[in-house]
Amino acid sequence: MKKDLLKKYNISDDEFKFIEETIMEAFPHHAGPQWKFAGAFYFATVVMAMIGYGHSTPATVAGKAFCMLYAIVGIPLGLVMFQSIGERLNKVASILIKKLKTVLRFNNTDATEVNLLLATGVLSSLIITVGAAMFSQYEQWNYFDSLYYCYITLTTIGFGDFVALQSGKALQEKPGYVAMSLVFILFGLAVVAASMNLLVLRFMMLNMEDTKRDEEMFPA
Amino acid sequence: MKKDLLKKYNISDDEFKFIEETIMEAFPHHAGPQWKFAGAFYFATVVMAMIGYGHSTPATVAGKAFCMLYAIVGIPLGLVMFQSIGERLNKVASILIKKLKTVLRFNNTDATEVNLLLATGVLSSLIITVGAAMFSQYEQWNYFDSLYYCYITLTTIGFGDFVALQSGKALQEKPGYVAMSLVFILFGLAVVAASMNLLVLRFMMLNMEDTKRDEEMFPA
Ligand SMILES: [K+]
Ligand SMILES: [K+]
Repeated sequence: MKKDLLKKYNISDDEFKFIEETIMEAFPHHAGPQWKFAGAFYFATVVMAMIGYGHSTPATVAGKAFCMLYAIVGIPLGLVMFQSIGERLNKVASILIKKLKTVLRFNNTDATEVNLLLATGVLSSLIITVGAAMFSQYEQWNYFDSLYYCYITLTTIGFGDFVALQSGKALQEKPGYVAMSLVFILFGLAVVAASMNLLVLRFMMLNMEDTKRDEEMFPA
Repeated sequence: MKKDLLKKYNISDDEFKFIEETIMEAFPHHAGPQWKFAGAFYFATVVMAMIGYGHSTPATVAGKAFCMLYAIVGIPLGLVMFQSIGERLNKVASILIKKLKTVLRFNNTDATEVNLLLATGVLSSLIITVGAAMFSQYEQWNYFDSLYYCYITLTTIGFGDFVALQSGKALQEKPGYVAMSLVFILFGLAVVAASMNLLVLRFMMLNMEDTKRDEEMFPA
């Protein structure tokens, strides 16, 4: 069939290759590398983490229906997972801070909330600066754009103006880079969850405890 | 200047209007309605709620820097706000359920966790079905696509394959529709927060209480 086509329209092999690539790029949802294993895994991570770059989206009714179902189940599970890892990170940080304070012969070796916030702050900055260097290297973005990409990804905003793993057949040909990108997203989100745990959850727990005390003092 | 241009290139007024519109659409970031008040408010909501459709994104270094700063401050505040509203919604639902059970002469008039989950489930379904009807009407999407848009928005995934308020000059000319879309997003997210409050936060609080008890029993 390909031969007949080439003959009929007098297309050279090089021209055919160009046409093929153009079509492949225009229909990434049907035929492209987006839905091979690495691409699909990346997509699933992007949905579960609520990043939603929009670099690939379901096109059919069945695809959309499955995506909704997957999101409704996957997101709460993802939240619990990231929060659990985040909490454990806080616990490890707390132990390390205690040891450091003991070595430095502090009078009070307790890891305070402020210490922990500082630790997660330092760790987040480290992940973002190292991540930005990696993406700047592999995606040929300037360092500031890479930094912006890392922020927009780890806040789970995911505009999609910059999306990693989309150029130079990275999904098929650079498995190491694919793995590092996924580790960046998953570990980065766990560190963000650790900060959120310290900031937002404590606030909400205090709130809940207040409510509980109010209810105990003035039962309805 | 415009006159000179028209004369020089022999462009008719109608042709000029067409060219003008084409350019306006190609550079929405610089000159388009995206950055008038309604559009900017919509953008800020989309960032703060971590939806990040990507329908408009900062193009300059200063714009990106401000967007990062805004996200870092706005998102934790947004989370606390949505969670606070969500918690109050749960409290109101709990009072209504108690009253209903009293009227229906139940023996035990307490609002259980399962009752509350059912109530937020019903409320979410209502918001999504009504919201989908509204977007289907105004955006000329079919009902299923509208439903998909509502899900992808309220889960804060925000792919950006469907974005409300982008067609037919809605941002400038339909203030009522703009207001309803924002209410849909903000109220919808508060209801989602209420469910998350019941599902995820309770789980985490139990987790934290376990940890606290462990620490009290086996102090490090
Ligand atoms: K998002
Ligand atoms: K997004």
